[in-house]
Amino acid sequence: MSLNVKSPSHSFTVMNELVLPNDTNTLNNLMGGRLLHWMDIAAAISAQKHCNSIVVTASVDNVSFKQPIKLGDVVTIEAKVTRSFNTSVEVRLDIWAENIPSATRVKSNEAYYTFVAVDETGTKPVPTLQPETEEENELYEGALRRRQLRLVLAGKMAPDDAIELKALFAKG
Amino acid sequence: MSLNVKSPSHSFTVMNELVLPNDTNTLNNLMGGRLLHWMDIAAAISAQKHCNSIVVTASVDNVSFKQPIKLGDVVTIEAKVTRSFNTSVEVRLDIWAENIPSATRVKSNEAYYTFVAVDETGTKPVPTLQPETEEENELYEGALRRRQLRLVLAGKMAPDDAIELKALFAKG
Amino acid sequence: MSLNVKSPSHSFTVMNELVLPNDTNTLNNLMGGRLLHWMDIAAAISAQKHCNSIVVTASVDNVSFKQPIKLGDVVTIEAKVTRSFNTSVEVRLDIWAENIPSATRVKSNEAYYTFVAVDETGTKPVPTLQPETEEENELYEGALRRRQLRLVLAGKMAPDDAIELKALFAKG
Amino acid sequence: MSLNVKSPSHSFTVMNELVLPNDTNTLNNLMGGRLLHWMDIAAAISAQKHCNSIVVTASVDNVSFKQPIKLGDVVTIEAKVTRSFNTSVEVRLDIWAENIPSATRVKSNEAYYTFVAVDETGTKPVPTLQPETEEENELYEGALRRRQLRLVLAGKMAPDDAIELKALFAKG
Amino acid sequence: MSLNVKSPSHSFTVMNELVLPNDTNTLNNLMGGRLLHWMDIAAAISAQKHCNSIVVTASVDNVSFKQPIKLGDVVTIEAKVTRSFNTSVEVRLDIWAENIPSATRVKSNEAYYTFVAVDETGTKPVPTLQPETEEENELYEGALRRRQLRLVLAGKMAPDDAIELKALFAKG
Amino acid sequence: MSLNVKSPSHSFTVMNELVLPNDTNTLNNLMGGRLLHWMDIAAAISAQKHCNSIVVTASVDNVSFKQPIKLGDVVTIEAKVTRSFNTSVEVRLDIWAENIPSATRVKSNEAYYTFVAVDETGTKPVPTLQPETEEENELYEGALRRRQLRLVLAGKMAPDDAIELKALFAKG
Repeated sequence: MSLNVKSPSHSFTVMNELVLPNDTNTLNNLMGGRLLHWMDIAAAISAQKHCNSIVVTASVDNVSFKQPIKLGDVVTIEAKVTRSFNTSVEVRLDIWAENIPSATRVKSNEAYYTFVAVDETGTKPVPTLQPETEEENELYEGALRRRQLRLVLAGKMAPDDAIELKALFAKG
Repeated sequence: MSLNVKSPSHSFTVMNELVLPNDTNTLNNLMGGRLLHWMDIAAAISAQKHCNSIVVTASVDNVSFKQPIKLGDVVTIEAKVTRSFNTSVEVRLDIWAENIPSATRVKSNEAYYTFVAVDETGTKPVPTLQPETEEENELYEGALRRRQLRLVLAGKMAPDDAIELKALFAKG
Repeated sequence: MSLNVKSPSHSFTVMNELVLPNDTNTLNNLMGGRLLHWMDIAAAISAQKHCNSIVVTASVDNVSFKQPIKLGDVVTIEAKVTRSFNTSVEVRLDIWAENIPSATRVKSNEAYYTFVAVDETGTKPVPTLQPETEEENELYEGALRRRQLRLVLAGKMAPDDAIELKALFAKG
Repeated sequence: MSLNVKSPSHSFTVMNELVLPNDTNTLNNLMGGRLLHWMDIAAAISAQKHCNSIVVTASVDNVSFKQPIKLGDVVTIEAKVTRSFNTSVEVRLDIWAENIPSATRVKSNEAYYTFVAVDETGTKPVPTLQPETEEENELYEGALRRRQLRLVLAGKMAPDDAIELKALFAKG
Repeated sequence: MSLNVKSPSHSFTVMNELVLPNDTNTLNNLMGGRLLHWMDIAAAISAQKHCNSIVVTASVDNVSFKQPIKLGDVVTIEAKVTRSFNTSVEVRLDIWAENIPSATRVKSNEAYYTFVAVDETGTKPVPTLQPETEEENELYEGALRRRQLRLVLAGKMAPDDAIELKALFAKG
Repeated sequence: MSLNVKSPSHSFTVMNELVLPNDTNTLNNLMGGRLLHWMDIAAAISAQKHCNSIVVTASVDNVSFKQPIKLGDVVTIEAKVTRSFNTSVEVRLDIWAENIPSATRVKSNEAYYTFVAVDETGTKPVPTLQPETEEENELYEGALRRRQLRLVLAGKMAPDDAIELKALFAKG
């Protein structure tokens, strides 16, 4: 069984990309869709490392883009698995943009992608994730709430049954 | 002023794409990130038609991918603006995948992207959207609730202030 | 048999593309070859919808490009089948270029592509096209003349046998 | 003035491309639009060498694709200018496909593209082409007939005025 | 002055790439040129981090590819600056290929790229590299010998003057 | 046996490429990695023509880039096989960059790539190269020295055993 338990650091993945002309609009800003594409590849590599399996994207959570990333900037994407479910995993992403000549590096955004492990015959079970640091524990706990929000938004769970999620809105 | 009021049909945009080898993983399934990229371009074209302006992606809402799209399939993306805010618009996307030889066409997923209108000097006001059909009215109403969810998830609004959104979770 | 008869509207296909830096020359004009590539994909999707089959490009008719399309413009391509032959179809394309900030939209050009329906074993019969509107009837009639021109230019028909085509040049 | 006269060999250009997965359909055949794109780039390089100027594609003549080119084949494109007009040139293309393991090389097709020489201010005069070999003379002569066909097809010349072209159809 | 001294860890850069169909030949092996392209981007990002400047590739040293990398593999590239010269730096690259389903990860190759720091007006001085670990010291020392080999191979240094390099061949 | 002997002219391959925006850095200079990628494709086509076989890149020798190539330039790559070994060949590349409007053409660089001939089962013998001109003989002779350098740098040959190579450094 212990072979089937992995820590988040096992799936830690870094990707660096240079923003090229075709990635930008006519104001030289990185297009959001291009970044979502890079994020999907980085997250998929991370999920594959945890699952030792081909994976397919099941969902991406709400992503907001705070400020423009410019042509020539270096985009750094860090990904790691936060929690495993039966045949799927959630991956957390942190994205930074670095302007080299001015040596400024800003956090661009964060995101959560989920992936299902598959082979030619269908879905397959994935190893269990065991968080180790305090931050990893927090991400692990939050994963349940985010999963409920996904299910509610996809119409697969009644809002009333989303216990962890409801707590957020019923504090008063 | 009437020049600054537009109907959703004005921004209606259709995109058809063929799933090519580089868009797929080793099981010949379209990668989610590639679809998110195409969706962003279709949505941006729709937003630009409404705003008559360059736009930048501000956010993408939770997207879930229901079933695999295969190599060689035709992906059809339909986009239109659902509501305008001061300097931004929400765009609704409907995505279908069509397998030509078997003549089957299935709904793949739906999504909402938001865009901010910009020029060289910063953000700029956008025309007002006036819904016309019943479906357009529903999308228009829902836009407020989705906006609150975006603000809550981005940490820019207290859950307690998200009136429309709270109603969803407090029905009991 | 009625299953094998389709109207042009069945194959109607719309494609929207954003002109990106790599699609342009150093004067920021869309390169003709890139547009011919997009047109081929749009036309192939249209032909596939009519034929319910994989198709291969058999020919493209004379295309002239009237005025430059610029970086950042939205290119809209509309395609539909105009006439079916035994194992092939002719597809008509209409192309517009839209400059968003100035809200100008101009017709860029028109074109005809032909496709052959194929599977692993070779060519295969295609459904019959039944034109419905007056415009569709005109396109249907003209298809014969264009086909003769293709055959003459490919050296597969003597100019003298191209009855419909000859009429054009022998009016005086 | 002699500086403004060039031979066809001056603009002779060769391009070799490897057919990669993304260039093919699901039967592993090169898509016609991809080949038209490569042909446009090869022809544009040839036209630029003659004109010493940036050029834009003005038209492509009827192209027919005789037989499928396969994944992994080497495509060889040869281009040279056949005739110059005031501000434009016609370029002839010959395309071969080579299957390496079987050492077979077949002629795929021929084509004519025309280009207009431009700078920031508009069109500009081009050097005169002086054919040298017998084959070059034939291509030079035929260019006039092809130009008339382009003008007739573009609706810019009455069929009756296309003297050289009419001769083809009025032989009987 | 101390602001102009940096450690190798400052420029440490990781890139992960997924081998897609268009990166491979018809035997599904990653093409060498595609890997050299990725290595150049990773090395350029590393050099830019050290130099806080745009950089251009000045040279790549002899690279040998030991074993095929396959379609679907994850390629990991690690880069860091090994030594600075007046206006240039040497970057060391280590490349691994990981096959996810079989959980095997093999060293693919190593390489050295050199870059020159530039701005609009020409080359510019770069910060000094100060090695810290034993391995970094070894790389720092070897950089001189590799530089002599580059100069000899480029015909810019007589073999006789390449003191460090000569030692290698004159041990007997 | 004579079928298995080929001259260098048999594998002579020319490739012309236009430098597009995505191939350049923010100073509009062609990135070195992009050029190495094109060179690999041109060299692989040349090696394939000699070997009548799929080939994989085994190594690239030291390449230095002398001066920047600019956006819009035409890059011409010429490749031919210089020497065959048991299952591999060495290919020599000459690269020029041409600026069309100014009609200047400069030698950019030279390089040597080696390839191994393979099929599904592994490596396979290649035809013998027979040099014909004086220049081809020189390249043929030098191939042995370059091969020794590759082996020494890859740690597969002791510097002392590299007879031809040692001669270079031991002249004094």
